[in-house]
Amino acid sequence: MKEILRQKLDDLLSGRLDREAFVKYISNFPFSDESGIKLDFQRALRRGLPEVVFGQNKSLEQLRAIAAKFREMSAELIMTRVSPDKYAGLAAEFPDLLYHEKAAMVTAKAEPRVLSAGRILVLSAGASDQAVAEEAYVSARYLGNLADREYDLGVACLDRILSVAPRLNDYSVLIVAAGMEGALPSVVAGLTATPVIAVPTSIGYGANLQGVSTLLAMLNSCSGGVSVVNIDNGFGAAYQASLINRKIG
Amino acid sequence: MKEILRQKLDDLLSGRLDREAFVKYISNFPFSDESGIKLDFQRALRRGLPEVVFGQNKSLEQLRAIAAKFREMSAELIMTRVSPDKYAGLAAEFPDLLYHEKAAMVTAKAEPRVLSAGRILVLSAGASDQAVAEEAYVSARYLGNLADREYDLGVACLDRILSVAPRLNDYSVLIVAAGMEGALPSVVAGLTATPVIAVPTSIGYGANLQGVSTLLAMLNSCSGGVSVVNIDNGFGAAYQASLINRKIG
Amino acid sequence: MKEILRQKLDDLLSGRLDREAFVKYISNFPFSDESGIKLDFQRALRRGLPEVVFGQNKSLEQLRAIAAKFREMSAELIMTRVSPDKYAGLAAEFPDLLYHEKAAMVTAKAEPRVLSAGRILVLSAGASDQAVAEEAYVSARYLGNLADREYDLGVACLDRILSVAPRLNDYSVLIVAAGMEGALPSVVAGLTATPVIAVPTSIGYGANLQGVSTLLAMLNSCSGGVSVVNIDNGFGAAYQASLINRKIG
Amino acid sequence: MKEILRQKLDDLLSGRLDREAFVKYISNFPFSDESGIKLDFQRALRRGLPEVVFGQNKSLEQLRAIAAKFREMSAELIMTRVSPDKYAGLAAEFPDLLYHEKAAMVTAKAEPRVLSAGRILVLSAGASDQAVAEEAYVSARYLGNLADREYDLGVACLDRILSVAPRLNDYSVLIVAAGMEGALPSVVAGLTATPVIAVPTSIGYGANLQGVSTLLAMLNSCSGGVSVVNIDNGFGAAYQASLINRKIG
Amino acid sequence: MKEILRQKLDDLLSGRLDREAFVKYISNFPFSDESGIKLDFQRALRRGLPEVVFGQNKSLEQLRAIAAKFREMSAELIMTRVSPDKYAGLAAEFPDLLYHEKAAMVTAKAEPRVLSAGRILVLSAGASDQAVAEEAYVSARYLGNLADREYDLGVACLDRILSVAPRLNDYSVLIVAAGMEGALPSVVAGLTATPVIAVPTSIGYGANLQGVSTLLAMLNSCSGGVSVVNIDNGFGAAYQASLINRKIG
Amino acid sequence: MKEILRQKLDDLLSGRLDREAFVKYISNFPFSDESGIKLDFQRALRRGLPEVVFGQNKSLEQLRAIAAKFREMSAELIMTRVSPDKYAGLAAEFPDLLYHEKAAMVTAKAEPRVLSAGRILVLSAGASDQAVAEEAYVSARYLGNLADREYDLGVACLDRILSVAPRLNDYSVLIVAAGMEGALPSVVAGLTATPVIAVPTSIGYGANLQGVSTLLAMLNSCSGGVSVVNIDNGFGAAYQASLINRKIG
Amino acid sequence: MKEILRQKLDDLLSGRLDREAFVKYISNFPFSDESGIKLDFQRALRRGLPEVVFGQNKSLEQLRAIAAKFREMSAELIMTRVSPDKYAGLAAEFPDLLYHEKAAMVTAKAEPRVLSAGRILVLSAGASDQAVAEEAYVSARYLGNLADREYDLGVACLDRILSVAPRLNDYSVLIVAAGMEGALPSVVAGLTATPVIAVPTSIGYGANLQGVSTLLAMLNSCSGGVSVVNIDNGFGAAYQASLINRKIG
Amino acid sequence: MKEILRQKLDDLLSGRLDREAFVKYISNFPFSDESGIKLDFQRALRRGLPEVVFGQNKSLEQLRAIAAKFREMSAELIMTRVSPDKYAGLAAEFPDLLYHEKAAMVTAKAEPRVLSAGRILVLSAGASDQAVAEEAYVSARYLGNLADREYDLGVACLDRILSVAPRLNDYSVLIVAAGMEGALPSVVAGLTATPVIAVPTSIGYGANLQGVSTLLAMLNSCSGGVSVVNIDNGFGAAYQASLINRKIG
Repeated sequence: MKEILRQKLDDLLSGRLDREAFVKYISNFPFSDESGIKLDFQRALRRGLPEVVFGQNKSLEQLRAIAAKFREMSAELIMTRVSPDKYAGLAAEFPDLLYHEKAAMVTAKAEPRVLSAGRILVLSAGASDQAVAEEAYVSARYLGNLADREYDLGVACLDRILSVAPRLNDYSVLIVAAGMEGALPSVVAGLTATPVIAVPTSIGYGANLQGVSTLLAMLNSCSGGVSVVNIDNGFGAAYQASLINRKIG
Repeated sequence: MKEILRQKLDDLLSGRLDREAFVKYISNFPFSDESGIKLDFQRALRRGLPEVVFGQNKSLEQLRAIAAKFREMSAELIMTRVSPDKYAGLAAEFPDLLYHEKAAMVTAKAEPRVLSAGRILVLSAGASDQAVAEEAYVSARYLGNLADREYDLGVACLDRILSVAPRLNDYSVLIVAAGMEGALPSVVAGLTATPVIAVPTSIGYGANLQGVSTLLAMLNSCSGGVSVVNIDNGFGAAYQASLINRKIG
Repeated sequence: MKEILRQKLDDLLSGRLDREAFVKYISNFPFSDESGIKLDFQRALRRGLPEVVFGQNKSLEQLRAIAAKFREMSAELIMTRVSPDKYAGLAAEFPDLLYHEKAAMVTAKAEPRVLSAGRILVLSAGASDQAVAEEAYVSARYLGNLADREYDLGVACLDRILSVAPRLNDYSVLIVAAGMEGALPSVVAGLTATPVIAVPTSIGYGANLQGVSTLLAMLNSCSGGVSVVNIDNGFGAAYQASLINRKIG
Repeated sequence: MKEILRQKLDDLLSGRLDREAFVKYISNFPFSDESGIKLDFQRALRRGLPEVVFGQNKSLEQLRAIAAKFREMSAELIMTRVSPDKYAGLAAEFPDLLYHEKAAMVTAKAEPRVLSAGRILVLSAGASDQAVAEEAYVSARYLGNLADREYDLGVACLDRILSVAPRLNDYSVLIVAAGMEGALPSVVAGLTATPVIAVPTSIGYGANLQGVSTLLAMLNSCSGGVSVVNIDNGFGAAYQASLINRKIG
Repeated sequence: MKEILRQKLDDLLSGRLDREAFVKYISNFPFSDESGIKLDFQRALRRGLPEVVFGQNKSLEQLRAIAAKFREMSAELIMTRVSPDKYAGLAAEFPDLLYHEKAAMVTAKAEPRVLSAGRILVLSAGASDQAVAEEAYVSARYLGNLADREYDLGVACLDRILSVAPRLNDYSVLIVAAGMEGALPSVVAGLTATPVIAVPTSIGYGANLQGVSTLLAMLNSCSGGVSVVNIDNGFGAAYQASLINRKIG
Repeated sequence: MKEILRQKLDDLLSGRLDREAFVKYISNFPFSDESGIKLDFQRALRRGLPEVVFGQNKSLEQLRAIAAKFREMSAELIMTRVSPDKYAGLAAEFPDLLYHEKAAMVTAKAEPRVLSAGRILVLSAGASDQAVAEEAYVSARYLGNLADREYDLGVACLDRILSVAPRLNDYSVLIVAAGMEGALPSVVAGLTATPVIAVPTSIGYGANLQGVSTLLAMLNSCSGGVSVVNIDNGFGAAYQASLINRKIG
Repeated sequence: MKEILRQKLDDLLSGRLDREAFVKYISNFPFSDESGIKLDFQRALRRGLPEVVFGQNKSLEQLRAIAAKFREMSAELIMTRVSPDKYAGLAAEFPDLLYHEKAAMVTAKAEPRVLSAGRILVLSAGASDQAVAEEAYVSARYLGNLADREYDLGVACLDRILSVAPRLNDYSVLIVAAGMEGALPSVVAGLTATPVIAVPTSIGYGANLQGVSTLLAMLNSCSGGVSVVNIDNGFGAAYQASLINRKIG
Repeated sequence: MKEILRQKLDDLLSGRLDREAFVKYISNFPFSDESGIKLDFQRALRRGLPEVVFGQNKSLEQLRAIAAKFREMSAELIMTRVSPDKYAGLAAEFPDLLYHEKAAMVTAKAEPRVLSAGRILVLSAGASDQAVAEEAYVSARYLGNLADREYDLGVACLDRILSVAPRLNDYSVLIVAAGMEGALPSVVAGLTATPVIAVPTSIGYGANLQGVSTLLAMLNSCSGGVSVVNIDNGFGAAYQASLINRKIG
């Protein structure tokens, strides 16, 4: 979006855009209110990462209004936790939007630009952790990172983890999504010098307590180099990994 | 103790013991009350494992009275959670008692008899889990089992676990003590066809919640073949392993 | 499945199977990915127990793909937590599948083979614990064990428990499913020298906290010889009992 | 205390006590403030049970002032949770006070009067539950009830429970103190038509959570006829049992 | 039911019933299995209170089978937690059944017999606690007690509580249902010498934690004479009150 | 302190204080670092209430350094949670400090100035809640308020509450400290139109959970007009009441 | 409503209303029972604030009966937590009712009267906290207060908070609704001398624990001058703020 | 330590060290057991960060043996959570050790080498969070990083936070230690594009729940770019920050 801003500035200076239009564009920045939903484009500028829309509790109408605003601002749209039917509703009006089904995310169809040389690896433990891992993977890519993924690395089967181990040091950040006993981040961190962002997932039953048990286990990791985000927060892990990656350059 | 009972019976039948003495001996069985502490020698007979004394909240006087009763009954004394100074107090009067310092246990000095062909392996994760692992190991041996131990197998360092892996199938039961994220039982169970009894330990801080986080993680193990006992209950794990071993013969 | 493997080996050696087909068959082993669901046939080999499919969060499409893969691999299919309508969807295509309604499980129609001389007894407390107990019972049988069941043994009615007591020592393992105050495993373990695997169930209301209260009670059992699996995890108890049984031979 | 009041009234009417002295006596009733400790003698009158002093967080000075006040009011003193050394401090000044060591209670040395025909039975599970059971037993007696006790009735050993069973219906109320899995109230209630007041005790470790696990188990009792008081609240159980007993007459 | 039993016995002795029929009748007693639901008529005999059916998780088919069995046994049917539509399904076949809508209970249409001279008062705090209070009230009456009710006595409005206060001592037991801060049992118990059975209700939101906060508050009541049953367990309170009442005679 | 500031300003303007001294005085304001303890005098100015020192985890040395700084700044010293021996250590050097023993607070000996016409009433439930109530009372007075107190108003004894009721509307704010079931704020709020600040106290045992149960109960108050501060936070309640009082003028 | 009462009194005294009608009107006051729902008009008089109806668990029929009663009593109707479809059902019969969609509240269409000079500001953090903030705002106004609102003041974007800061001291009370980490009340309270009523909201996922985490954070606010109400209790905050405002006059 | 290893290798190749001595040196690497404490020097090599000793539960004897081993291995000693008296005991024998009093850490006296160009900033909220912040700061420096610190940035006083804000982007990682409501990480992360590692501290009381409330708040941060470590785990945050820094180069 910084580029759009620079272009608008060029347009203003070259006379292609008049003063009033520029003022209106800029004034939209900080707190653009669409259907009661604030879009903080300014923060996006401040932090160097695009504004991302959390779709879970929003109606199709709200999502539509937001998408329209993004188009108007020429901002790159990223939405998390969008159900297939809400995407269908959006796609009718915005044909250039892409649905990532496993991640339940919506992005532009255009390939995301790469903004950092660092590479992120997303790992997941069981089959049921894939949705969270995919949210992390798609988010990481559309936040401007090179990213790979390795799934189904449950600690009950060390062979697969060990087969991945030699490559772990090649990455700048590892995102590790796991449910149940949440042991994968500890095992992975023990094998590498790359920092691990752990994402507990809520899949499980009984004493899993909707992911709280997994979260607690990860916070008690015996391996150094593990920090933790909220349960199921694949996007949050990708955001943190992106900030780290930008520092790498 | 069954042998003692058989011998008393022989004594009775052969006339070496008179009726009244035998009746008194037998009547002591079910609920021998010493200083307000019940010793259930009968259950010991019923379950085939000796009565074990939980020493934690008992005074030296109570422990002394119990030890005297055991001597009188010719029963094999096993006490858990006895502090060094309480042992010192006991040893003065009962010189044939042995102190297992790391396990904080008291047993007879005589080598324990082996009552089953199965062999138990006690594994522990970190250095701070050793006290619990030792309680399991000493208990397992004095409950009549062959037992080995392998400590310091934290999941942050897979090499050691893998070096132990080839031998895991040789055991009849594995007891795995771990604190923090409690991942070791899952990793171990994934490597073997031997059943795992997991013991969460309470060492840790903060989000460890005195071992509750570890306990919850273990109950959510993604590996089949893991069942769990109470936090720090090394003795309980050994007791369960002994029952299993007796079934093996 | 080991037999299938041996047969494939024979086929290879006798020329009935060419090299490429054999390689493809073997390469399917470790991580056969069907609809995003990994089937770890290799672990099945390693642990001596068949791979079991957790059906709860899987779609009919995923279950179908898995069933097809199992048929292709000539592996014995066992699925837990399959709803009646999903079974109906499966049965159309796989007529040799059997539905165990109370256990909500799907297995082959063929009688399971018996792989161990040990016998497992599944006990349950109240009527509402039966689904979990049935999952344990059906799992135990299809994992290759001889198994019996005794239900409705609530501790509020000791007569029935006592009528079962004399037979408890005849079994190699007892699986005890109970909800509410979770007292049955303690009472049963006190009556026998057979190890008890306790399964807390989530049926209850209010202070039951979806089975957490029951789980906590079981972990505090005053009887030795009780280890615990996750809430409602009837299959997990059967898996652990099977591993123990295999050790018995 | 009602009798004292009646006597004072007689004294007043007969002229043995002047008006002012009577007024002062009465005015002491509701909120006699001693060392910042309120003694609600009025409530004692209202509820028909003596005021009982909770000694746990009170200093020796406060206990002394209270004892003096009781003597002045000719009220029957009952104190719970008094340590041996505090009792020693009290006894020097009040030689007619009796210490119940296991119950950690102080009462008058005089035998308590019996105010109801109903009889209370206090049962306890393990040795470590005795302190709480004794608090219930001594409280029950000094609140004016006939009371018996049966200890060490752990559910791991049904024989003793069953030997007590035939007498349970002879009592008006049963108080059942138990720790760990808290199963005894359920088992006892299932054997009788007498109401059970359950008292969870805090003795245990790990997943016992200082008695919270036991409390939760008791609240989920599968037997009807069990109601529960706070953890370790032996006195509270006795108070409730006394109110029931008074209704019986 | 005791009467039915006596009559069957008369029939046997007088030859109206042959031996085989009598044996079959008796053998039905302990564990009459109807659609997987055990009816413990024997316990009903043992405890002097009718068997009550917990309807919540039972299907219409199961309820029907149970009702048929009760009719066959000439036992008095009491069902709790029956939804209106399930009742409708039952009523078609069993026209002599009565539905208590607020209590969500089903009983016989016949007026319940009174088996004790004691009288039970059911009190509730807010409007939303009425369903639980009604379950207690209807249960109390159909378990053979005289019962009254006083609702909407929230502690925010002491006037109503005080207007009821003078009558509280006239009852043998008080059942107090309350949600939110759960203060009513404390306030009521402070006003009377009648024992209070407190029932926490789950109505609330946020920090109410589905009634757990209310439950905890009640267990900490500063008034003696309060014991507690599980959240929403109006029936359980009535059952306990009935046992107390029977002791009164 | 504003006055001191104004005086310093006068001194500067009149030449009694030179520029440098004034700058140094002012620069001390925001973050005066004493022994690693920040004193935020600026916030005191901003909020109109004096800076209050939380003494609990501070050493005598730290408290001494703070007291010296306050003297230097001519600020009014208020310290909470100071043990008697720490006060003794302070008093040697600062003889003008007063110790409020029940409140465990230290203030200047001078009578506090009254800064608002509103009057605060501090109420407490049981004897053990007095320490918290006193902290609120002393804090309220030294923060510049007129304040009264009424203690021992447990809900088990409504008479005393009702005797206080007619005066409740005369106050601007009520601070209500209570432990156990935490019912007093609900009862009090129901009797008045004065806002209630509720303070849960941690005195209790078992299911009290160190005041958490009380806190939860208060948050669920059925009476409007109750807001809550942290457990044992008597000072916090007084602070909030003071802010309200200042608005009244 | 006091005015209505005064008018009825005038009518009585002037003979426009006969004695019996007046008595009936008054007798309706305390506990007018409509469809099992008590309306405490008397408390409304006592506390000076109108009775407010909590609509969440009430049926349309109950809401209709209540609305009719209010009309009959000439009382001002305020209902919280009314869904759009229930409002539609109400509006058909009561056309003078207004629906506040975001607040999910129903009030009279007439502008609310202002009863206090103090002004309340409602602030909220994120977009998802708006429903709760609106409940507080609409409630504050219809309880007779001047009120303003400022939304979307998340602490991740301090600019907006700081832009509001200079006006905070102009208000008599601030109501601050926030979810997630619940930091806004602390930040706001640090900027002003106006008391803050904090309302935790339940929007979030995972470790948010349905608002419990937010609630706990707010209770631990490092800023003085914050007191807390139950999760999502926007109305409760407004009620407390109104009582404070009335004290201001 | 890599350098030491390289030097040993040089010694071997140049003949200064014989084969056996080299083998012994190397064999010490993986699991050097000192007084039951394993030192994993190999992991140190693998992860590029020195082995750090957690001193909390270790005796002086254990610490001495460890220090001796480190000297023998020429490894850089870093110990966390060492009390002043234990340090005194160490210093007698190891005069080249330095004590960091606020951090309660022991390191070599030599200035740590800088191994990365990235710079870490440690921020803390209140005075009581300093110990944790210092552990993070000293750890960060001795793990080879450039590090600065800014303390006493409580969110109740935004001025100081804002004064630091302009410099936040200059750092590669921010470590933010805070207790109570744990809001500082959210506020800081909102002001910068630098990733934040949040450390909850356990200082607090009541509803703080020993830091669990703070931890939960941080996990729910509304600002992206925050990941969390265990309560009080200043060292863990520094370790994670170091790994990130090494990626930057």
